[in-house]
Amino acid sequence: MDLTPQQKEEIKESRALKFETHRATVPALEDILYQPIPVLDHGFVRVIDYMGDDSAIVQAARVSYGKGTKKLSDDAGLINYLLRHQHTTPFEMCEIKYHVKVPIFIARQWIRHRTANVNEYSARYSVLDREFYIPNVDQLAMQSKQNHQGRGELLRGVEAQHVLDLLKEDATRNYDHYVEMLNEDPDGNVIDEERAGLARELARMNLTLNTYTQWYWKIDLHNLLHFLSLRADTHAQYEIRVYADAMLETIKRWVPIAHKAYLQYRVGGVSVSAAGLDIIKQLLAGKSVSQKNSKISKREWSELMATLGLEE
Amino acid sequence: MDLTPQQKEEIKESRALKFETHRATVPALEDILYQPIPVLDHGFVRVIDYMGDDSAIVQAARVSYGKGTKKLSDDAGLINYLLRHQHTTPFEMCEIKYHVKVPIFIARQWIRHRTANVNEYSARYSVLDREFYIPNVDQLAMQSKQNHQGRGELLRGVEAQHVLDLLKEDATRNYDHYVEMLNEDPDGNVIDEERAGLARELARMNLTLNTYTQWYWKIDLHNLLHFLSLRADTHAQYEIRVYADAMLETIKRWVPIAHKAYLQYRVGGVSVSAAGLDIIKQLLAGKSVSQKNSKISKREWSELMATLGLEE
Amino acid sequence: MDLTPQQKEEIKESRALKFETHRATVPALEDILYQPIPVLDHGFVRVIDYMGDDSAIVQAARVSYGKGTKKLSDDAGLINYLLRHQHTTPFEMCEIKYHVKVPIFIARQWIRHRTANVNEYSARYSVLDREFYIPNVDQLAMQSKQNHQGRGELLRGVEAQHVLDLLKEDATRNYDHYVEMLNEDPDGNVIDEERAGLARELARMNLTLNTYTQWYWKIDLHNLLHFLSLRADTHAQYEIRVYADAMLETIKRWVPIAHKAYLQYRVGGVSVSAAGLDIIKQLLAGKSVSQKNSKISKREWSELMATLGLEE
Amino acid sequence: MDLTPQQKEEIKESRALKFETHRATVPALEDILYQPIPVLDHGFVRVIDYMGDDSAIVQAARVSYGKGTKKLSDDAGLINYLLRHQHTTPFEMCEIKYHVKVPIFIARQWIRHRTANVNEYSARYSVLDREFYIPNVDQLAMQSKQNHQGRGELLRGVEAQHVLDLLKEDATRNYDHYVEMLNEDPDGNVIDEERAGLARELARMNLTLNTYTQWYWKIDLHNLLHFLSLRADTHAQYEIRVYADAMLETIKRWVPIAHKAYLQYRVGGVSVSAAGLDIIKQLLAGKSVSQKNSKISKREWSELMATLGLEE
Repeated sequence: MDLTPQQKEEIKESRALKFETHRATVPALEDILYQPIPVLDHGFVRVIDYMGDDSAIVQAARVSYGKGTKKLSDDAGLINYLLRHQHTTPFEMCEIKYHVKVPIFIARQWIRHRTANVNEYSARYSVLDREFYIPNVDQLAMQSKQNHQGRGELLRGVEAQHVLDLLKEDATRNYDHYVEMLNEDPDGNVIDEERAGLARELARMNLTLNTYTQWYWKIDLHNLLHFLSLRADTHAQYEIRVYADAMLETIKRWVPIAHKAYLQYRVGGVSVSAAGLDIIKQLLAGKSVSQKNSKISKREWSELMATLGLEE
Repeated sequence: MDLTPQQKEEIKESRALKFETHRATVPALEDILYQPIPVLDHGFVRVIDYMGDDSAIVQAARVSYGKGTKKLSDDAGLINYLLRHQHTTPFEMCEIKYHVKVPIFIARQWIRHRTANVNEYSARYSVLDREFYIPNVDQLAMQSKQNHQGRGELLRGVEAQHVLDLLKEDATRNYDHYVEMLNEDPDGNVIDEERAGLARELARMNLTLNTYTQWYWKIDLHNLLHFLSLRADTHAQYEIRVYADAMLETIKRWVPIAHKAYLQYRVGGVSVSAAGLDIIKQLLAGKSVSQKNSKISKREWSELMATLGLEE
Repeated sequence: MDLTPQQKEEIKESRALKFETHRATVPALEDILYQPIPVLDHGFVRVIDYMGDDSAIVQAARVSYGKGTKKLSDDAGLINYLLRHQHTTPFEMCEIKYHVKVPIFIARQWIRHRTANVNEYSARYSVLDREFYIPNVDQLAMQSKQNHQGRGELLRGVEAQHVLDLLKEDATRNYDHYVEMLNEDPDGNVIDEERAGLARELARMNLTLNTYTQWYWKIDLHNLLHFLSLRADTHAQYEIRVYADAMLETIKRWVPIAHKAYLQYRVGGVSVSAAGLDIIKQLLAGKSVSQKNSKISKREWSELMATLGLEE
Repeated sequence: MDLTPQQKEEIKESRALKFETHRATVPALEDILYQPIPVLDHGFVRVIDYMGDDSAIVQAARVSYGKGTKKLSDDAGLINYLLRHQHTTPFEMCEIKYHVKVPIFIARQWIRHRTANVNEYSARYSVLDREFYIPNVDQLAMQSKQNHQGRGELLRGVEAQHVLDLLKEDATRNYDHYVEMLNEDPDGNVIDEERAGLARELARMNLTLNTYTQWYWKIDLHNLLHFLSLRADTHAQYEIRVYADAMLETIKRWVPIAHKAYLQYRVGGVSVSAAGLDIIKQLLAGKSVSQKNSKISKREWSELMATLGLEE
């Protein structure tokens, strides 16, 4: 993880400041406020600000349900109920803001979620830093044979080393040429007074997709949980999953009750189709069912048996 | 403004609590946190929570512009620049949450803005309170002759009084019949043990549109300023404008620099069409222009002359 | 269902027109284009326009997956796969526009879905028609004892009749007073030249919540299916469910493959929590499980047993 | 512009098909439906589908305004009025779908607009084509001295040629290494049976930001006009402006009245601040005003004088 000296100084200053507030405040999250959590080789996630806590979810639900809620049980019971029944609006009443440093090819996946507010570093205004993601050897996997978008076994020694060499050389060379075309170093100093330098908005096109970018990213808890259910999933690419995992840790500190409900009903939970439910009912009734006499495809049958922990 | 004793107690308790935080904190807004600002006869707006301050806008802009921003002037200069040039994303980095009590016919206008998070009191779950908006006599205006959606002169004495009587009688009678059909008072007590009572989700249809509802409403600063530029406008209906005005006061406390820029560039500013700009240029060059030799309609000409403070 | 003569004429004219297009066209939907489907006593839903068909979903998915999709099976297989795995963006490539007439208290539920485009009839500009929803006797239910937001048994004869009388009298009286205050009939004619008439934006507050409003409502297929999964659900209020049911019929005509997949994976499907899945696995393994030795609440246990069709 | 033979065949087939529809149809847009409009060296924009026309805007506005609209003038007058007064919802009732091929660094700007539906080619599933954007010599500009995010004068001969050489060599080499790491050609054929090949989701990180991607992009007319007012603006980067210009041509064919109003009120129009309006009024009154005795900054003064065509 690479913070600039200036960023380190700002974090120190921000953490030294203390204010008095009447707002809902979460000590466990305050403990890590502004502190970067390292992700990948140069990336990080850090919480910049937050609004609300577990009680804010409950409070919003009670506005909706009015006096009718008073018969409902305690906060945890209510939060479980809300999540189980897709009553998602009370979770929108909590908001969190992150500062994220992430390789561009992962940023491109991330930005597809449209429900967040974003301020990204602009390479039209300023020069990007000399930082690119190079995977660890234990992440250099082959294309999966089964899964069109996944990884299979690891690459072997020589081939793995060759891949690493190519990634490093190409990213480095392209960055050096970027600076050469700009005729300007990352601090904005002219390199060669005799030359003009290409406009930043053009020179950037020479960079590789593993170059790091950074942004402020602000989102409400409901949409964040939806983002995480897609991106912390085992089908997600490893390089975004590690960011999702880091954010899950911040959620555990921030809203521990909602976090626990989320693990129970979303992460560990499954969706079963009408036909799938019918098969489960037959199995529970002691009947024999096979893919052939079911109404579902081989692929869906395999998925269902895997879900139920049954051998095929 | 009518708060229930329970709400008053909650406000007192919330204001008595003080926490220590590293987050950006705004004392002028803390001073009124949770406190209701009265609007109309029974409505209110109160700030429940907030995230960020003027510096958070600047901070987000500096992430975008990187080192390129360091040549830009101070915070106020940067915020003015952002607002003038429609660089709106940094304003999305501030968030505010309100608790609002508002008549249903105004809530219906308000909810058309889709960029906020909302939790509204549900009349399927609970019984609504006996509160309805009755305008002051100085708001009982005739339909405007010029403006299809506006008000004209005030109604005269007898007619005004008759209108007030009708509004009061109808709202009261309909509410009484609502409770009668429910067979349940607002506290959830059965009125007549011999009768069954109509389902709440049905009985509510008998209420008039001036009945008060309430909600939590959370929005980012950019979208809030857009909402206010439409709803604090002189073309907006008085009954929503007073809510917009109350919110503007909270914005002045919360982000005073952005508030000032907003007044300068949005509220007091105007949009001029291509043809309108052409006319202004001709006038400045001392040429004589009339609606007939211009390219714009009579209606647009009148609007332009009014904007420029010129007699027609 | 009440269409004005003018609306009937417009529908006839629109249906008489035929154009030639290269766009994806769905004859089964063209057959009912512009035609109102009656809902409740005066409401309707009608399809005004649409973009795309089942193939447009497949086409968009194939852009995403590129040559990698060619190994995937036929259209129905692909659409099933997309819906089962929450790959929702291809469904956003189809769009539909409805004209809807609906009582205001139901419109207020409906509008909470923020992902649609809406143009609603404005009672600031024009006078609303004398139409209000009065439930059929077989819908006049008591408040449910189990469900805080639901209906229970039907009301008995005398009480039911009394409710109907109140609803009719109050809606009628309030509408009459609305017209009296306006001093203007629904066609815009002044009633009493001696009086001024209250502004429309004020007079409307006297109307009851069962007054009908109307709007154009445009949405993409993904968000429409999400809307319908909430509003065609048995927990939804009857008065919105009938609109959802009518729209489901139009979807069946429009995108029959997606409609079938939706019934299979969403409508008939269920979500099972981590603990619930664990219980199913134990039951399938022949173990004895009870609520007490499970990790879930009594309420969730009941829901699970009901889902699995097991007696408690 | 590079279409694959398969894409060309699909376009031919799609254009050969003709259907009968009752929907609003626009012959001038049908004439170019599916046809690619070339942009940059390998990019294109093509219209895939559309919903509505100028009349659909009017129709939606008339639903909102009801009988009150009948006094309003013709369609063009109404559309002008709507655009001038920011009544934007009727423009949301038209929808258009594009297929776009665009360099990744421009796609990253484009995707920041969150109000569209998108299906992008996934380099996790399939291999990207060997196509990268290399600017024309007449676009190889220096960094602007005045504008932190803009271009200044053109680069001179030798330096320009050096930049072109670097861009070509680096993009080509990186693509070749991408294919080598994949051990798979763009058609999915294994290159060297002895080697394993890196997973596609990893190998893609070696590509340069000028590599072309493609997507389906669907948006309503209001949000499209907002996108274009930002991206067809002179402050926008040339490489996105040419896409915006191409889309403006399609809008001219699709909704000619709205297009004309847009040029008049948005493109050619200007926003003037409160202080700026005050200065214009003083100038019109023949008073002498200078930056020093005005309330605005030097920068804003320069912008205002430039807008008014006045020498400083």
